[in-house]
Amino acid sequence: MTVPTTILGQNQYGKAENRVVKITRDGATHHIKDLNVSVALSGDLDEVHYSGSNANVLPTDTTKNTVFAFAKEQGVESAEEFGIALARHFVDATEPIRTARIRIEEYEWERIDLDGGAAPHSFVRRGQEIRTAQIRYDGTDVQVLSGLKGLTVLNSTDSEFWGYIKDRYTTLKEDYDRILATEVGAVWRHGPAGSPGAESGSGSGSTDTDWNASYGAVKQQMLRTFAETYSLSLQQTLYQMGSQVLGHRPELEEIRFSMPNKHHFKADLAPFGIANEAADGAVYIAADRPYGLIEATVLREGAEALIPPDMTNL
Amino acid sequence: MTVPTTILGQNQYGKAENRVVKITRDGATHHIKDLNVSVALSGDLDEVHYSGSNANVLPTDTTKNTVFAFAKEQGVESAEEFGIALARHFVDATEPIRTARIRIEEYEWERIDLDGGAAPHSFVRRGQEIRTAQIRYDGTDVQVLSGLKGLTVLNSTDSEFWGYIKDRYTTLKEDYDRILATEVGAVWRHGPAGSPGAESGSGSGSTDTDWNASYGAVKQQMLRTFAETYSLSLQQTLYQMGSQVLGHRPELEEIRFSMPNKHHFKADLAPFGIANEAADGAVYIAADRPYGLIEATVLREGAEALIPPDMTNL
Amino acid sequence: MTVPTTILGQNQYGKAENRVVKITRDGATHHIKDLNVSVALSGDLDEVHYSGSNANVLPTDTTKNTVFAFAKEQGVESAEEFGIALARHFVDATEPIRTARIRIEEYEWERIDLDGGAAPHSFVRRGQEIRTAQIRYDGTDVQVLSGLKGLTVLNSTDSEFWGYIKDRYTTLKEDYDRILATEVGAVWRHGPAGSPGAESGSGSGSTDTDWNASYGAVKQQMLRTFAETYSLSLQQTLYQMGSQVLGHRPELEEIRFSMPNKHHFKADLAPFGIANEAADGAVYIAADRPYGLIEATVLREGAEALIPPDMTNL
Amino acid sequence: MTVPTTILGQNQYGKAENRVVKITRDGATHHIKDLNVSVALSGDLDEVHYSGSNANVLPTDTTKNTVFAFAKEQGVESAEEFGIALARHFVDATEPIRTARIRIEEYEWERIDLDGGAAPHSFVRRGQEIRTAQIRYDGTDVQVLSGLKGLTVLNSTDSEFWGYIKDRYTTLKEDYDRILATEVGAVWRHGPAGSPGAESGSGSGSTDTDWNASYGAVKQQMLRTFAETYSLSLQQTLYQMGSQVLGHRPELEEIRFSMPNKHHFKADLAPFGIANEAADGAVYIAADRPYGLIEATVLREGAEALIPPDMTNL
Repeated sequence: MTVPTTILGQNQYGKAENRVVKITRDGATHHIKDLNVSVALSGDLDEVHYSGSNANVLPTDTTKNTVFAFAKEQGVESAEEFGIALARHFVDATEPIRTARIRIEEYEWERIDLDGGAAPHSFVRRGQEIRTAQIRYDGTDVQVLSGLKGLTVLNSTDSEFWGYIKDRYTTLKEDYDRILATEVGAVWRHGPAGSPGAESGSGSGSTDTDWNASYGAVKQQMLRTFAETYSLSLQQTLYQMGSQVLGHRPELEEIRFSMPNKHHFKADLAPFGIANEAADGAVYIAADRPYGLIEATVLREGAEALIPPDMTNL
Repeated sequence: MTVPTTILGQNQYGKAENRVVKITRDGATHHIKDLNVSVALSGDLDEVHYSGSNANVLPTDTTKNTVFAFAKEQGVESAEEFGIALARHFVDATEPIRTARIRIEEYEWERIDLDGGAAPHSFVRRGQEIRTAQIRYDGTDVQVLSGLKGLTVLNSTDSEFWGYIKDRYTTLKEDYDRILATEVGAVWRHGPAGSPGAESGSGSGSTDTDWNASYGAVKQQMLRTFAETYSLSLQQTLYQMGSQVLGHRPELEEIRFSMPNKHHFKADLAPFGIANEAADGAVYIAADRPYGLIEATVLREGAEALIPPDMTNL
Repeated sequence: MTVPTTILGQNQYGKAENRVVKITRDGATHHIKDLNVSVALSGDLDEVHYSGSNANVLPTDTTKNTVFAFAKEQGVESAEEFGIALARHFVDATEPIRTARIRIEEYEWERIDLDGGAAPHSFVRRGQEIRTAQIRYDGTDVQVLSGLKGLTVLNSTDSEFWGYIKDRYTTLKEDYDRILATEVGAVWRHGPAGSPGAESGSGSGSTDTDWNASYGAVKQQMLRTFAETYSLSLQQTLYQMGSQVLGHRPELEEIRFSMPNKHHFKADLAPFGIANEAADGAVYIAADRPYGLIEATVLREGAEALIPPDMTNL
Repeated sequence: MTVPTTILGQNQYGKAENRVVKITRDGATHHIKDLNVSVALSGDLDEVHYSGSNANVLPTDTTKNTVFAFAKEQGVESAEEFGIALARHFVDATEPIRTARIRIEEYEWERIDLDGGAAPHSFVRRGQEIRTAQIRYDGTDVQVLSGLKGLTVLNSTDSEFWGYIKDRYTTLKEDYDRILATEVGAVWRHGPAGSPGAESGSGSGSTDTDWNASYGAVKQQMLRTFAETYSLSLQQTLYQMGSQVLGHRPELEEIRFSMPNKHHFKADLAPFGIANEAADGAVYIAADRPYGLIEATVLREGAEALIPPDMTNL
C-alpha cells in the first residue's frame, strides 16, 4: 500500500462498559453500588498506531481487571471518588499514560419494603434517571463532571408558547396552555478545591466534596425549579434550572443541559364533535419524532466554559 | 402468478402503540394517565386477504381515532377498564368484527416533591416497571390479563445453587451464597365475575374489580415474596411468588412468569492476591448474555391454564 | 408464609442468547457462521419449583457449554441442523428432560470486496434481515420452524386503500397512490419427512432438507411477490406473499406473518404553495408510532395450523 | 426564587430527527432518498433564555416544515448538498440566526431483484451501515463532515496481540492468531473549495464535490484496508484505514474513528477434551460488554484538527 503523509491526532483507548456491582455487608444489612465504568487512556501512544508495537500499551483487559480490583480494595463510596482513584492510578502507575478519563453510569436501587420495614438485603432497581460522572486526570489536575440522564418530567399546565418569528414555513399555532415535558440530560462541573464552594482549602481536585449529597441536592433543585417555573419557552425553563442549581450549590461552576421537547399534541377530536380543551383536562398524543432539542450551558459569572458543547450526555 | 391451493388461517389487524396521555383537572390539582394502546381486531376478514376488498375493514386509522376519543369521553380510570370499553365498542359497533384484543402498557408518574408538599401539576416519570393489561372480548366474554415487565430485583444473599445434574459438559461450581437477580415479567389472569374473588355476583367479565388496587397488591406481594424466599433455585423463588400472589388475591386464577437469571459472577481477583468472598462483601461482574431464562405458570388448583406459554410479556 | 393450594403449569428453562461464532478454515479461505442460540428445556421439573431440589436440573450453564462444544464437534451447516442436533441431545441424553426447544438467530456476513476478488478471511456484516429457526423435539418428533425478521421493504407506488367502513370516528381519506412499506417478520413450518416436499421418504423430522437453499428461496419469493403485487390492502399483499411461498416451496406447510404498516404520510406543503403529489414524486414523513399491524397465517389446504397466533417473531 | 449571578453559555436549538423520504419518479422508475434530518440553530438567543421572549425564535416546528418543503423544492441529490442548502437558508433568511448545524443520517435501499432485472419501484432496505453528514454554516464558511456508523467488519485471522505492558493486574495471554472485529464509526472532514482536492477553484465551502461518489470510495477504501492490514493492534489497523483513506481521497483533510473492539473469545472446550485452536477453525464467544474502545484522529500533514475528540458518531 502507498503510505500518504498523514499524522496521528488526538487518540484514546481503554475498556468501556465494565459492569461492576459491589456489595458491602454490615451484618445482615447489605449495601449495593451498581456501576458501568468506562476507561479511556491517552499518552505516548504514537507507535502502536504507526507500527503496531504494543510496548507502551496497557491492555484494555488489564484496565478492566483494575476496575474490579479497585472496587474490592478501595470500595465504592461514590462514582466520583471511585473514578478519581482509578484515574490517578492509571496515570501515576503507568509511565506512558499521561491522561485518564473515567466515565461512570450508576443505577440506583432501593430496598424492598416489608411489613416490618426495609428489607436488609433485597433490592428493587429504581429505574428513574441514570447518574453519571466523568473524571479526567492529567497527572496534575483532576476535573470532575457529574450528571444525570433519562430524568423525564412533565408540567401539565403553566406553559405557553407564542410571540415567535413567523416566516413562509410557519404553520404552528400559538398556545397559551400546553404540556411541557422533557427528558433532562445534564452535566455539571465541580470547581477546584479551594474555590468558594469547596470544603477544603488546598490541593488540586475538588476531592473532598460529599458527592452523593451534592448529587441529590442538584437533582432535587432541578425538579423543584422545573415545577415552579411558569414557562414561556423551554429555553427559559432550562436557564432557570441551571441558574437555580448554581445559585444553591456553590461547589459548582457550570452546568450544561440537553433537553428534548417531548411534544404532547392535543388530539383533534373536533371531527367527532368532542371538545378537547386543556382547561377541561385534555387528551394528548405523546409524539416520538421529530422533537425539539434544546441545549445550553449556564455558567457562574466569571467561570470558564469547559464542558464541550457536543457533550450532551456522559 | 400461479395461485396455489392455500387458505387463510388466524388473522388480526389494528393500530398498535397509540401513545395516549390523559390529563384530568381537579382545580389546580391535575392527574395523569400515560398509556400505550394497541388494538387487534378479528372477524369476517377473509375477503380483504383474498381480493383486497376493504368492505369489512374498519381502518386502523379509525381504531386510533377511537382510542383518543374514548380517552376523552370516558376517561381512563385504569388500563383494564379503558381496554374493556374499547374492546366492547369495536365488537359491538362494527358488524364484521367478532373479536377485539386490546393491549396496554402504562407508564407511571409521581408528583414532584416541593417544600410545601407534592406539586399539583408537575410530575416525574417513575421509570420502574411497566404495567400491562390485555383485554379480549368475543361478543360474549371478557378475558382480562394484567401484568408488568421490567421490574428488576436482587437479593445479595440467601440464594444457593447446588445438587444439580452433572454431565460431560458441566463445569459450573456449586454455590452456597450467591446473588439472585432477575427482571420480572409477569401476566396474571383475572377470574370471571361471580368467581370467589370477584366483587360482584353476576354478568360476564370481571369488570367490577378495583384494578389499580389489585395491581398494587400483586406487585407488592411479588416483591415481598422475592425478598423473603430463601432460594435454592430461581424456579423455587418463581413458584413461591406465584403461589403467594394467588394465595393473597382471590380475584386471580393463574399467573405466568418470565424471569431471566441476571447473572452476577464474582470477579476473579485471586491472580492479584485479593480475596473476594461473598461473606465479606464481594465485587461482581453483572453479565449481559447469555442468561438463564426461567418461565412457568402457577395456577389455582382446578383453574384452567389459559395464558399461552409463549406469552412472556404483554 | 401461608401456602395456598396452587399447582405448577407449563414451565421451561435454559440458557438464552448464547452468541456462537464458528469459523471454518479451508486453507486461506475461511467461512463464518454467527448465531445467537437459546435453549429451553421441559420435563420432570416439578420438584425444583416446589422444593428447590435441583436433582433433575441440568444447569443452564451446562446447556451453554453444550452449545459451544457442539458447534466445534459437529460444525454448523445450518441453524436448523445445529438446532436439531442440540434438541435431540438434551432430550436423549438427560433422563428428566422430555422436550427441548432451540431458538436461533443468525446474522449473515459477506466477504469484503478486493480488487482481485472476494477477500478470503475478511467479512462485513450484511445487516439486512435476521434469519431465525426454532426446533422442538419431544423424544419422538422434530418440528422445525424457520423464519426471518427485520426485512424492510417498500413499494413507492402500486398501492391503494379505499372502500373501507366509515363510522363516526373515521377521518382517513381514501388513497389511490400511496407508499406501501413494512418490516416483514415471518415464521414458516416445514412438513415432516415423507410429505410431498420432503426429499427423503422415511424417518421422523424433515431433517434432509437443504435448509440454506430453502431459506434463500423463501426470502426471494417473498421479495418478488411483494414487488409484483398491485396492492389494495396490506392484508392482500401478505396473503399473496404467503400463498406464493407455499406454492413454490412444497416442503412448507404453513407460514405466519407479522407486518407493521410503516406509514409514509405525504407532507402537507399546501400552506407554502407547494404541490406534493405522488404522481410527480412526493416527499413523505416516515412515521414511527402508531402503526398498523397486520398478522395472519397462510396454510396449505388440508394442513394443520400449528404456529401459535401470538408468535410473531421467533 | 433567588436569582444567582449566572450567565448563558453556548446554546443551540432546533427540530431533531425529521424523517424525510423523497421519491423521485422517472417514468415507471422511481428513486428513493431516506433521511433523518436534525437542525440546530444558534444566534441572538439570550433573551429567550433570560426572559422567555420568543421574539428571536424561529420555532422548531418551522424548521421541521422547512426541511420537508426543501426536500420537495430542491430535491435531495446527497445528504451533504441538502444540508448545505438548509444551513444557508436558516442563517441567510432569519436575522437573529447566526449559525446552523444540520446533521443527517441516511438509510440506503436497494432495488428488489426480479427475474427480468431490478424492480422499478420496489425496494428493500440494505441495513448495513448508516451514512451520516454534518454541515455547519456561520454566514461565511461551510464546514462539511461526512461519516458512517454501524459498519461491522471481522477478520478471522491475520491479527495478533502481544508485547504489551504487564503490571499487577494483567492476566491476558498473548495471542498470535485472533479474530479482529469492530463496528466502524467514522467522521471525515472535507477541505474547503480551492484546496488540492476540491474540484472547483473558488468560493467558500467545498460545495462542488460529488458527495455520493466520495462517500462510496471512502467506505470501500476503509473495507479494503481493514481486510489487507495484517494487524498487531486495533490501533494500527485504525491508523492504516485513516491514512489510506486520506491518501486516496485528496478532498479530505482529517478523519476520526471510533472503533469498539468486538471481542471474540475462543470457547474453552478443554474441560470436555475438545481442542479448539484457531488454526483448525475455532468456536468463539461473541462478547457484549465490556469492550475495548479505540478512538483516534488521522490528519493530512499540515491540516488543522477540527473534529472534536468527543464526536465519535454524528
